[in-house]
Amino acid sequence: MELQKRTVFIVSDGTGITAETFGHSVLSQFTHKFSFDQEREPFVNSPERAKDVAQKINEVAERDDLPPIVFSTIVDEDINTFLRTSKCIYMDIFAACVHQLEESLNTKSDPGIGRSHINATSDAYRRRIEAINFTLAHDDGQFVHDLEHADVIFVGVSRCGKTPTSLYLAMQYSVKAANFPLIPEDFVRGTLPNTLLPHRHKLFGLSINPERLHEVRQERRPGSVYAELSQCKYEVAEAERMMRRENISWLSTTTKSIEEISTTVLKILNLDRKSY
Amino acid sequence: MELQKRTVFIVSDGTGITAETFGHSVLSQFTHKFSFDQEREPFVNSPERAKDVAQKINEVAERDDLPPIVFSTIVDEDINTFLRTSKCIYMDIFAACVHQLEESLNTKSDPGIGRSHINATSDAYRRRIEAINFTLAHDDGQFVHDLEHADVIFVGVSRCGKTPTSLYLAMQYSVKAANFPLIPEDFVRGTLPNTLLPHRHKLFGLSINPERLHEVRQERRPGSVYAELSQCKYEVAEAERMMRRENISWLSTTTKSIEEISTTVLKILNLDRKSY
Repeated sequence: MELQKRTVFIVSDGTGITAETFGHSVLSQFTHKFSFDQEREPFVNSPERAKDVAQKINEVAERDDLPPIVFSTIVDEDINTFLRTSKCIYMDIFAACVHQLEESLNTKSDPGIGRSHINATSDAYRRRIEAINFTLAHDDGQFVHDLEHADVIFVGVSRCGKTPTSLYLAMQYSVKAANFPLIPEDFVRGTLPNTLLPHRHKLFGLSINPERLHEVRQERRPGSVYAELSQCKYEVAEAERMMRRENISWLSTTTKSIEEISTTVLKILNLDRKSY
Repeated sequence: MELQKRTVFIVSDGTGITAETFGHSVLSQFTHKFSFDQEREPFVNSPERAKDVAQKINEVAERDDLPPIVFSTIVDEDINTFLRTSKCIYMDIFAACVHQLEESLNTKSDPGIGRSHINATSDAYRRRIEAINFTLAHDDGQFVHDLEHADVIFVGVSRCGKTPTSLYLAMQYSVKAANFPLIPEDFVRGTLPNTLLPHRHKLFGLSINPERLHEVRQERRPGSVYAELSQCKYEVAEAERMMRRENISWLSTTTKSIEEISTTVLKILNLDRKSY
């Protein structure tokens, strides 16, 4: 069956990241019948800019001979009017929930443009940049000092997903995440690397299916001993044995996205609470 | 005026990232009267897990003597029932938009659990991991080979925001982003680093207000020549002069978040379109 093609606009007075995430989730419930071409229109924060975007929408409506779908987070009514009256299916994604909350909380909402992202000079922003710097400096066991400031220290065999997970947690949740490879000499010695012993309570293990690890390592270093399936099997078995013996919480990354791994880690480490 | 405290639950059958982003944007319109304590409940994908979460919600309702606010992206009705009937203000964030789209597109939606994140073995996922690896390898001019595969090469003085921007673009948009510091010897020589000349069309400049740069460098290396205000002024003036002379698009990061910088770059490089 041929999918029907539709154009989608993501329109926001800020970056459009909220509208994009939301729109993508909603549209994924229609991909059995449709395919979507999406364009982002960020920083629509003046009537002039809104007029330009409305014109673009009208042009696409004419070109496609179908009204585009617009996901908008714009709250300002002056700006909204231009978009709402263009030829489109207009999805004001906050409207229903804001209205419901106004009723339930018995309070008028106070829009205010672009407050959903933290400001570049705030303390929260500084903590975020610090977490990114910390995480980069402590990638792959490069830097062993200062581990007392880590929120979490990932351990696992080379190429099991430690680095992307660490960077994601730092970037999105300001978590200081160090990571440390478990290597064959650790398995021969049969103990955790010495540097990690004082920080045992912060360790979190990542593991991976040996067949998948073999594929990943083959791409990096084709034909090497490092990439051989038997080597991958040995390392994974030993790493998991060590985690069990040392009582380290761990999970397998094989079929999980970076977001899924990170969410699970936040939950286990009790870092999934926020106040604002 | 004292803010009223409310508890918020983010409930999802997946990671909860969409619900969290959305909830945060909506609640920020009520922070003039309320403060929020948020807890995330991811992977609510069975009636048993839903029952547990509903009970937690009821306990909090009792403790606070106020119903918590629940932002949910759960589509499965069997799972939803448990949550909907707990003591809370239940915000089914997709419902209104999915309903509107069903009408407009004249098509029933097809839920399907947790499809909004890319799978760990898909091509899209592989491209993402490749972009992260590329970006890490090409951070701070470390590795000058392979620049022909970069989607963008950031240039700018040390500590103007090149690294966090590069990592964000790689992580969230699978953009291969290299970055290259502009250093005093480039200014003395008066030309771009040689390695960059063949890739001039991919260069994007980042700059920063010298006073802000001075603060940032002071935190890293207090009292150094590198951090002196006069040095910061000199480097920024020279870098901006070079970007103008070489006709490189650039922006100032001073008051912008990583998301804002990245969104602007995606727009200028025409990387803000997606299909799905």
